[in-house]
Amino acid sequence: MTAPNVNTLWAETLVSELAAGGVDAVCLSPGSRSTPLTVAFAEHPDIEVFSHLDERSAAFFALGRARRTGEPTPLVCTSGTAAANYHPAVIEANQSGVPLLLLTADRPPELIDSGANQTVDQEKLYGDAVRWYRDMPEPEAEPRKVRMLRTTAARALRESTGNDPGPVHLNCRFRKPLEPTPMAEDDPAGVPADWAGGDSAAETGRDGPFVTTSEGVAEPDERTVRRVQDALQTAERGLIVAGPADQGLSADSLERLASATGFPVLADPLSDLRFGPHVDRLDVPVCGGYDGYLGSDGVDQWDDPDVVVRFGASPTSKPLRHYLRDADCQQFLVDPAGGWSEAEFTATDLLVADPDATVDALVAESLSGGAAPWREQFARAEQAHWDAVTETASATYWEGGVLADVAALAPDPATLFVSNSMPIRDIDRFGRPRDADLTVLGNRGASGIDGITSTALGAGSATTDPLVLVTGDLAYYHDMNGLLALGRCGVDATVVLLNNDGGGIFHMLPIEDHPTFEDQFRTPHGLDFEPTEALYSLEFERVADRRQFRERFGNSVRSDGTQVIEVRFDAGDSHAVRDRLAEQVGKALADD
Amino acid sequence: MTAPNVNTLWAETLVSELAAGGVDAVCLSPGSRSTPLTVAFAEHPDIEVFSHLDERSAAFFALGRARRTGEPTPLVCTSGTAAANYHPAVIEANQSGVPLLLLTADRPPELIDSGANQTVDQEKLYGDAVRWYRDMPEPEAEPRKVRMLRTTAARALRESTGNDPGPVHLNCRFRKPLEPTPMAEDDPAGVPADWAGGDSAAETGRDGPFVTTSEGVAEPDERTVRRVQDALQTAERGLIVAGPADQGLSADSLERLASATGFPVLADPLSDLRFGPHVDRLDVPVCGGYDGYLGSDGVDQWDDPDVVVRFGASPTSKPLRHYLRDADCQQFLVDPAGGWSEAEFTATDLLVADPDATVDALVAESLSGGAAPWREQFARAEQAHWDAVTETASATYWEGGVLADVAALAPDPATLFVSNSMPIRDIDRFGRPRDADLTVLGNRGASGIDGITSTALGAGSATTDPLVLVTGDLAYYHDMNGLLALGRCGVDATVVLLNNDGGGIFHMLPIEDHPTFEDQFRTPHGLDFEPTEALYSLEFERVADRRQFRERFGNSVRSDGTQVIEVRFDAGDSHAVRDRLAEQVGKALADD
Repeated sequence: MTAPNVNTLWAETLVSELAAGGVDAVCLSPGSRSTPLTVAFAEHPDIEVFSHLDERSAAFFALGRARRTGEPTPLVCTSGTAAANYHPAVIEANQSGVPLLLLTADRPPELIDSGANQTVDQEKLYGDAVRWYRDMPEPEAEPRKVRMLRTTAARALRESTGNDPGPVHLNCRFRKPLEPTPMAEDDPAGVPADWAGGDSAAETGRDGPFVTTSEGVAEPDERTVRRVQDALQTAERGLIVAGPADQGLSADSLERLASATGFPVLADPLSDLRFGPHVDRLDVPVCGGYDGYLGSDGVDQWDDPDVVVRFGASPTSKPLRHYLRDADCQQFLVDPAGGWSEAEFTATDLLVADPDATVDALVAESLSGGAAPWREQFARAEQAHWDAVTETASATYWEGGVLADVAALAPDPATLFVSNSMPIRDIDRFGRPRDADLTVLGNRGASGIDGITSTALGAGSATTDPLVLVTGDLAYYHDMNGLLALGRCGVDATVVLLNNDGGGIFHMLPIEDHPTFEDQFRTPHGLDFEPTEALYSLEFERVADRRQFRERFGNSVRSDGTQVIEVRFDAGDSHAVRDRLAEQVGKALADD
Repeated sequence: MTAPNVNTLWAETLVSELAAGGVDAVCLSPGSRSTPLTVAFAEHPDIEVFSHLDERSAAFFALGRARRTGEPTPLVCTSGTAAANYHPAVIEANQSGVPLLLLTADRPPELIDSGANQTVDQEKLYGDAVRWYRDMPEPEAEPRKVRMLRTTAARALRESTGNDPGPVHLNCRFRKPLEPTPMAEDDPAGVPADWAGGDSAAETGRDGPFVTTSEGVAEPDERTVRRVQDALQTAERGLIVAGPADQGLSADSLERLASATGFPVLADPLSDLRFGPHVDRLDVPVCGGYDGYLGSDGVDQWDDPDVVVRFGASPTSKPLRHYLRDADCQQFLVDPAGGWSEAEFTATDLLVADPDATVDALVAESLSGGAAPWREQFARAEQAHWDAVTETASATYWEGGVLADVAALAPDPATLFVSNSMPIRDIDRFGRPRDADLTVLGNRGASGIDGITSTALGAGSATTDPLVLVTGDLAYYHDMNGLLALGRCGVDATVVLLNNDGGGIFHMLPIEDHPTFEDQFRTPHGLDFEPTEALYSLEFERVADRRQFRERFGNSVRSDGTQVIEVRFDAGDSHAVRDRLAEQVGKALADD
């Protein structure tokens, strides 16, 4: 490989190694210092370029793609505050174990802390929120350095994926000239024809990645397997709890474990197991209504579980977390990253092991199923819950009903991205399990309302499935810039905008009764979002009732282009319906 | 001081100490974990609340206020990614020495790294970009702890201001209940009536701040003063260079130094010395056109300066920086923060001392003035430059002409905020010094195009002067969310939007000729910004020629409400005019 100057050589080498390692897309933001990387990515024949003007949105877009694919989409930005705009998405990626590869351009070492323009301290900019950080050496046409560069590309991909995926940050320093300007061979920025001195691995790389990497799948040891099997064997009231996980337990493994144990499955909407063919195929109940009934008086009279097997992160549902916390029993948490996602500190056994490999090992021996009355209890609770949800949705047009409709009407297959704050809680409680290939995603690592639109569009960019985004008005406002990707990145979506003019979630908290509530917590903004139609590539529709919503939603998921369907509610009213519904289910269960 | 619970006690104490220390405003963003702080700030009678929904914009708004006032406006946000959204503004504040006080709410220690909701690692979140960081202890009604809290408030204000001002971060942990819910005295969250045990300083604080702080003004020692005086005495061709500084050398000091030395003054637009009564009063030229002529052929034949006295940061003008770099002479850099803002490494002497105190000391002895021909050379160059600028502005409607008009027509007094990328370079070259109280501000620490609108509006919120913002289309898009403050924070502005549909600055770089230029560098977006009128509290006007622009601009600065005046140009054409103008001035000087 020869190139007009060392920066070009360096950037082309890095990009070609990333491509050899499987990278097929990049998110670029315009800037000067990043020119070598930008040119190398843009000119690579196998890499799709997504161009973003706001680096905050860019990073969330890359995060969304990685959520959907499990593979990183590198990010490139110029030096200075641009890189700091990645920080929110880096934290979300760190918390939820999503691969990100941050390539931040930087000034050469002699300009650091010199007052030079757009020069800031980018070293370890994201602190402990990245899995791996390298302050890259200065580009040079020198065999060992270029070998290091090729290896670094492979290593960056490996560190960001695998059993404990997350963000990786390479700070890339470049000295002018930044453009692919030809330089004389004897110029310090030039590339002599014989620079590699016959080291062809350095010069041309290998056929495929410079280092082919793989990471073993962690299987639990025999003693551990036997311990878990023993616990499952003797249990009458076991539970399988699938928490949030983008690339977690497979539906196939879940089916096998549930069939073998006869335990009910409580499937978080973000577990990727709330929806799918296993829902109808399994004899045990696949539960999605527990957030509505586990906290109710009727359930107070239930027995506790006597064993729990958990996968993924802490469940979204607070009633479920508290129910598990209050159960004095053995609780196995299977987590390949050893992440201790244990908000209530309930686990008695942590298995740092691959979920599918663990299930393989567990079901190798036949397990006696749990007790039938326990299953029936959950089945009855689910029935009572869904009956009440259906009935309420017919009688009342309200926020939870919209989420119920979205879950029911989303096409098969579809990618469904759900914002934090109320939408994720509502899909958790009102999204009924069904036999459909719905990939439900959310930013539940740090649970921010920033970057929601961009993350959704990034996920959508990685698939041909229809994309549905359910978001609130604060989240829609926060990442309005992300809508630019609709036109620039070729993504279409159906956006359900739940507009209750402010922070509806605060109605759930005691602060609701405080005089500062309206101005500092609910913070009504009075924004009319219709002008986003004229700003961005979308159609904006406001619907007034359930019939209209269902009709427009159905049309939108079947059509091209992006439709934003705004539904307006009063957050206080919605909370009243939630309460009424919970009471109704509780009563039904108590009377049972 | 008693309170319903320890969180309320803690937050009310902190806020009352900040108020006692001079804080009169706060930027709040809605969230739950920050409830104690939010309530305490909102209920304090002497504190104005600015409510922001996007924390990135909030931080830039606070930065803008601090630029204008020299005092911090605290920021309050909830836990999680919210705090990371402050990061870009924190970096800008660090680089340009602007006070910021970041109060990030956090979970109590037992929930860190537990998978608990919205819980991330906020410790040292901003790395070395803050002057001081404290992970605050858990709130408790205990005299020594509360004394520590009161002292911390005073210390935070001191650390963020003074000779080396910058951001300070207090990470504030709260355990539920977050609301001012009354708790029993014997509850761990309760506050016993006798908690202070008679320590009235802990309980009620003092009359005024708990600790009254002051920081000495650094005066240069006698030997240093004599060394500088000797250099100035013997110089024929001295220069006074005033670089970017929000609270730097006073106009009065500048006048005295310039009068005493007879040296021309080169005043960066961000030095706060480009405009003001000293411009007309001084006998030496106060130069603003040097960016246009210092690089020209005509100046190549000039002598180098034989001594330079510099204040503030590295000048915005590259021709000026290179001119100074190429001058082999004594260059004194006066910087109270000892910041070594030295992008070309030209200084021979660094004086860590107060600029005004330094001037006081220097002019205590009479200094023989520099040579008249040297002053005349600069006066002639200025004349040639401004003649060419005036002539071109009459003949051509173009970007630089708009900046020349803005500088000439801005009311007296006014606050003028200028975006990075081309606007700051154009005001530098085309903003003619005049006798008017214009406070020109920009984010020149890290020179990002993020947060520009919010920083400007924050500056405007601190003064009754008319506010003018000159921004480009990329910066306008990047911080569109910042426009929400127009309605919510009671700020009016005249916004001059220079729309050349993309990154016009890249036309200046060699990448202009590369095939990737259009898509990855200029990155045209085709955005029509007119719908921002319907979204936010502003009037949007597009003007087609110079007459219209001058008329609308004049009307806007005299009227209430916010007008966005869009001017559209082709960036390539504008660069051609810049080049032509420079040639014309060079020729005039060479012929001279």
